[in-house]
Amino acid sequence: MTGGYPVGPMRLSCLFAPTLREDPADAEIPSHRLLLRAGFIRPVMAGVYTTLPLGLRTMRKIERIVREEMDASGAQEIRMPIVLPADPWKATGRYELYGDVMFKLTDRHDRELVLGPTQEEVAAPLIAGDLPSYRDLPINVYQVEWKYRDEFRPRFGLLRGREFLMKDAYSFDRDEEGMRESYRIMYEAYERVFERCGLDFVVVEADPGQIGGGVNHEFMARASVGEDLFVECENGDYLADTEAARPMAPEPAGEGTEPMVEVDTPDTPTIEALAAFLGVEPSRTLKCVMFDVAGRSTAVLVPGDREVSVNKLEKLVFPAKVRVFEDGDFEARGFVKGYVGPQGFGEDVLVVADHLVRGGRDWITGSNARDRHVRGANVGRDFRVDRWEDVVEFREGDRCPVDGGSLRIGRSIVVGHIYQLGTNYSAPLGARFVDEDGTEKPYVMGSYGIGISRIMAAAVEQRHDDLGIVWSKALAPFEVVVLVANQDDERVCAEGERIYRELGQMGVDVLIDDRELTAGVKFADADLIGYPVQVVVGRRGIEQGSVDLKLRATGERSSAALVDATRAVVDLLASAP
Amino acid sequence: MTGGYPVGPMRLSCLFAPTLREDPADAEIPSHRLLLRAGFIRPVMAGVYTTLPLGLRTMRKIERIVREEMDASGAQEIRMPIVLPADPWKATGRYELYGDVMFKLTDRHDRELVLGPTQEEVAAPLIAGDLPSYRDLPINVYQVEWKYRDEFRPRFGLLRGREFLMKDAYSFDRDEEGMRESYRIMYEAYERVFERCGLDFVVVEADPGQIGGGVNHEFMARASVGEDLFVECENGDYLADTEAARPMAPEPAGEGTEPMVEVDTPDTPTIEALAAFLGVEPSRTLKCVMFDVAGRSTAVLVPGDREVSVNKLEKLVFPAKVRVFEDGDFEARGFVKGYVGPQGFGEDVLVVADHLVRGGRDWITGSNARDRHVRGANVGRDFRVDRWEDVVEFREGDRCPVDGGSLRIGRSIVVGHIYQLGTNYSAPLGARFVDEDGTEKPYVMGSYGIGISRIMAAAVEQRHDDLGIVWSKALAPFEVVVLVANQDDERVCAEGERIYRELGQMGVDVLIDDRELTAGVKFADADLIGYPVQVVVGRRGIEQGSVDLKLRATGERSSAALVDATRAVVDLLASAP
Repeated sequence: MTGGYPVGPMRLSCLFAPTLREDPADAEIPSHRLLLRAGFIRPVMAGVYTTLPLGLRTMRKIERIVREEMDASGAQEIRMPIVLPADPWKATGRYELYGDVMFKLTDRHDRELVLGPTQEEVAAPLIAGDLPSYRDLPINVYQVEWKYRDEFRPRFGLLRGREFLMKDAYSFDRDEEGMRESYRIMYEAYERVFERCGLDFVVVEADPGQIGGGVNHEFMARASVGEDLFVECENGDYLADTEAARPMAPEPAGEGTEPMVEVDTPDTPTIEALAAFLGVEPSRTLKCVMFDVAGRSTAVLVPGDREVSVNKLEKLVFPAKVRVFEDGDFEARGFVKGYVGPQGFGEDVLVVADHLVRGGRDWITGSNARDRHVRGANVGRDFRVDRWEDVVEFREGDRCPVDGGSLRIGRSIVVGHIYQLGTNYSAPLGARFVDEDGTEKPYVMGSYGIGISRIMAAAVEQRHDDLGIVWSKALAPFEVVVLVANQDDERVCAEGERIYRELGQMGVDVLIDDRELTAGVKFADADLIGYPVQVVVGRRGIEQGSVDLKLRATGERSSAALVDATRAVVDLLASAP
Repeated sequence: MTGGYPVGPMRLSCLFAPTLREDPADAEIPSHRLLLRAGFIRPVMAGVYTTLPLGLRTMRKIERIVREEMDASGAQEIRMPIVLPADPWKATGRYELYGDVMFKLTDRHDRELVLGPTQEEVAAPLIAGDLPSYRDLPINVYQVEWKYRDEFRPRFGLLRGREFLMKDAYSFDRDEEGMRESYRIMYEAYERVFERCGLDFVVVEADPGQIGGGVNHEFMARASVGEDLFVECENGDYLADTEAARPMAPEPAGEGTEPMVEVDTPDTPTIEALAAFLGVEPSRTLKCVMFDVAGRSTAVLVPGDREVSVNKLEKLVFPAKVRVFEDGDFEARGFVKGYVGPQGFGEDVLVVADHLVRGGRDWITGSNARDRHVRGANVGRDFRVDRWEDVVEFREGDRCPVDGGSLRIGRSIVVGHIYQLGTNYSAPLGARFVDEDGTEKPYVMGSYGIGISRIMAAAVEQRHDDLGIVWSKALAPFEVVVLVANQDDERVCAEGERIYRELGQMGVDVLIDDRELTAGVKFADADLIGYPVQVVVGRRGIEQGSVDLKLRATGERSSAALVDATRAVVDLLASAP
C-alpha cells in the first residue's frame, strides 16, 4: 500500500534517510563511513556525492552560520558561475599552475573553458568592471558555491572530493593597509564561524608557499585522520606551520675544551658512515651543506642529526635564487664533496649557521680533504659564522620558542584558509580602480575560503563514537528525535505525536521517528544519525507516566514525567554541547 | 577616504549594486537590458552571468516560494552533483539525443563526464540504490541547482543562458496511477508557485514531442518577446500547444450541387499553380497528400489552403511509421504526382480527411492524370473517406473548439515543465523497487522543472516600463526604498534613518539610499531598480512635516505626515501588487 505524501519533512516515515547496517567497503575514515551509513550522502562517482535530506539540513546550518558571520562583517553575497572562460586563468598563470587538477573543457565553438576551483579570476574583473572609484572601497563579495578540482586520487569522502561546497570571499582595497584591515575582519569572522560550528580548531600562519606569496592563515580542525600537519607546543602556547616552525635556540654550550685535530675517516662521506666509524652520536657532528645563492657559495651548518630546510633558506635570501651544490660545483669551487668543514673558508663563502649549532662544541666535521675529518672544531676559534638563522627542518620534540616545552606534530583538516593576495591577481588581470589622485591602480586583494562540506566531515571526525555520529546542536540535522518505541500502540503514538508537536511549537528542530519498525532499529538509527537529544516514548513509560531522555554526547539517560516532557527536553537540549 | 565596511546589506551606500545609465549594446530584450542596467547581473561570457546582490535577493525570494510549495507538497530537498559520469546518459540515449547541447569533458583519467542539463540519470539510480520496497513509495526528491546547456547561440540574458538555475524534482511511484497522482500534486504546486511569483501565466498540455512521450504540461509566462508559442481562444476558454491545437470542425457544407467534370489544367502540379490557372481561391481546392503508413498508401485530405500536420498524423497511427511519398512511391504505386485525387481509390488506400473538409463541397482536385483536374468532387458521391480526423496544421484565425471564437498565437516564456515519464528512464537505468508480490519492477517516474533564473527574467518582461523594472512585492529585492534626497542635511538624514529603522523593525524588507549622490540620480535608480514603494525624505518635506510616497506600479504619488510615515508606508505596501 503506497501512502501518498504525508506533508512535512520532520517525519522519519516520509524522509528519504536510508541508513546502512554495514560499513561501506571503500570508506576508510570515520566521517566517510558514518555520513554514508547515516544517510547523509551517497556517491555518484569517485569524489562526487549526492547530498541527501539529512546531509542537506546539516550543510544548510553550516551555510547559515557562515552567511551570518559574513554579512555581519560587511561582506556581500553574490553568485559567480561555475563554468568559466579559460583566458583569465591563463593571464594569472593558474591555468598552468593547476594543471591536471583543473577540469578543462571546450564548448561547441571550441572555446576553452574551465570549472572554477576558486574564483579570483572572476571576482577581480567583476569589481573592476563596475567600480572605478576609490570612494567605493573597500568592498568584499562572497558566494557559497560548488568548486571543482580533479584530484588524482579522490578519497576520504567529503574531505578530498572533486566537487565540494565552498564559501569564497574576495576583498578589494586601495592599499596594503586597507587589505590588512579587511583581512583582520575576515580572520575574526572565521574564528566565530568555527566556534559556532563547534569545531576544535587552531589557526596557523601558513607558509606562503611559493616565494613571494603573502601572509596567509589556515584554520585547522584537529582530526587524527587529517592530512594537514601543524606544529604545536605541549603547553598550548605555540602553533606553527611545519615549514615555518622555529625551535627555541639552545643555551650556548660555551667554549670548546678540545684542540682541533684531524683524524683518518676512510670512506665516510655521509653523517651516518662517519658516526658509525667513530662510534659517536650523529648529533656530535656538524653538517655543512653547500648551496649556490645567487652565484655565491654558501655553507649552511646544522647539527649532524638535523636537516637543512631549503624552504627556510629560500625565504631568508629571497629574492635571490637558491640551488644546492651539484657534483660539478664542489670540484669547480675547490670543495671536497662529503668532507666539507667550515674551517678555513674564505670571505667569498657565506657561512650560515642554525641557532641549534650554538648548543654544541668540539664538533666533528669535514677536514676539506677526502677521507679525513676533524674533531674539536669550535665556533669563533676554528671557524666563523656570518649569520645565525633558523634554517633547520622542524623535528618532533624540538623545544617551543615560547616556553621551551616539547613541540609535537598535530594532524588536522584545513577548513578555512585566508590569504593576503596584494596585487598578485589584480595586476595581471588589469583589475583597477581610480585612486584619489586620478591614477589607475590595481586593487589590493584578499581572498578567504571556507570548506562547507569539509566542515561537515571534520565535525563528524571530531564527534563520533562506535555507535555513530554525535552532532553538536549547531550542526545536527535535527536537534531532537522523538522515538516512538511501540508504533502499534495508539496511546504511545498519540503521546509521541503530542510531544513532537509541542516541541515544534516551541521552536525546537524536532523529528519524529514514526516508522513501522522495531524499537531496536529506531534506537540504532538514532545513535547512528546522532541527534543531540533522544526522547523515547514507549509503552512501559506511558503506563508509568514517563518518557526516557538520552543525551547523545554523554549517553546519559534520564526520565521525565509525561506531563512535563516537553520542558524537560528543552532543558536537556539547552545543556547539550 | 575609504570608509571600512558599514555593516548591513540594507544600505545602498555599501551595497554592490552598480547601475548603468546607458543600454548595454548587445541586450536585445527588456529583461536582459534592465537586469544589466539595474545591477542584478553581469556577464562573464556568452550565456553565463554573475548574479549581483540585488539579483541574488530576488532569486532567493523565488527559490523560497518554490521550496515552500515543494515542501508543502511532500517533496524532499536533496542536492545532486553537477559533474556527472557519462555512462547513465548513454544508457538512456540522452547522451546522443542532447548532442552538442550537452557540455562534455573528460577527467584526468580520461573518463567521460558531462555537466548535468537535468538530472533524471542521477535521481533514478539514487532512489533505486536505497529504497527497495514498494512500502516506501511514493517518493519525490527535488533540488535547486545550476544546470548546463551549451546553446548554439546563447542570447536574451537569462532566458537562453548556458548556465541557469533550475528547481528539478523527480517522483517515484509503483504504478501509473501513483504517477498520475504525484503529477497532479506537482501540477497544483506549480500553479501556486507561479501565482505567488505574480506571473501572468497559462498552462498548456504540450505536445509529447518524440512519439511515445507521455503527458506533459508547460507553464508559460506570457511575454511578447517569448519564443515559446501557444494557441489560445480570444475568449480565454481554450489553450493548446501549437502542435496540438484542434480547430473546431465547420458546419457540414451539405450535398454537392455540381456534377464532377474533368478539366484540362496544363502544368499545375501545385495548389498555387492550379488556383491561379482556374482563377479560384486555393481554399476551393482539395489537397490530397500521400503517405506511406506502415506500408499502406494513405491519402490525407485537407482544404487546398491548409497544410497537413505530419505530427498529428504520426500520433494518430502510432506506433506505425509515417513516411511522406517520395517520387518513386507515386510511380511504383500508380499515382500521378501533383494530380492525385481521392476519386476511384481502391480499398488498399486509406483515406483520412481533416474535419475541415466537411465544410466544403464541389471540390477541385486531382484527376489522377497528368495536367488534368476535376471540378465538383463531393464526399460520398465521388470519393469515400475512411477516417475523419484532426490532421491539419493550426493557423491563426482558426475557430476555437470550445466556443467557436477566433484562435490566436500567444507568445510566452516557459517557466515550468512537468512530465509523466513512466518507465522511460527507470527501465534503461535498471532503477527498480520490489513490489508487493516480490517482483522487481522499474519505478514509474515523473519529472518536474522550474526555471528559477527564468522566472526572474519573465517577471521583468511582464513588469517594466520606460523607467525600469516594476517588481511585484513577492520578488522585489527590497519592498521599500527610503530615499534620502538631501544627504548633506542632517535633519533629513536623521528622519530618513528613523523611518528606515522603524520599517525594518516592522519586518518590512527595506533599503535606505544613503549614498552621497544627487536626488535626481537616486530617483532614477529607484525607478530603474523598481522597488514597489519609494519613500522620499527631503528638506522641503521635512520643513512641512511630511514625506513623499510613490507606488512604483502606478506611479501614483502621495504624501504622509512625518510622524505617521512608517504606518503610511506599510499601508501603501499592502496595496502594492
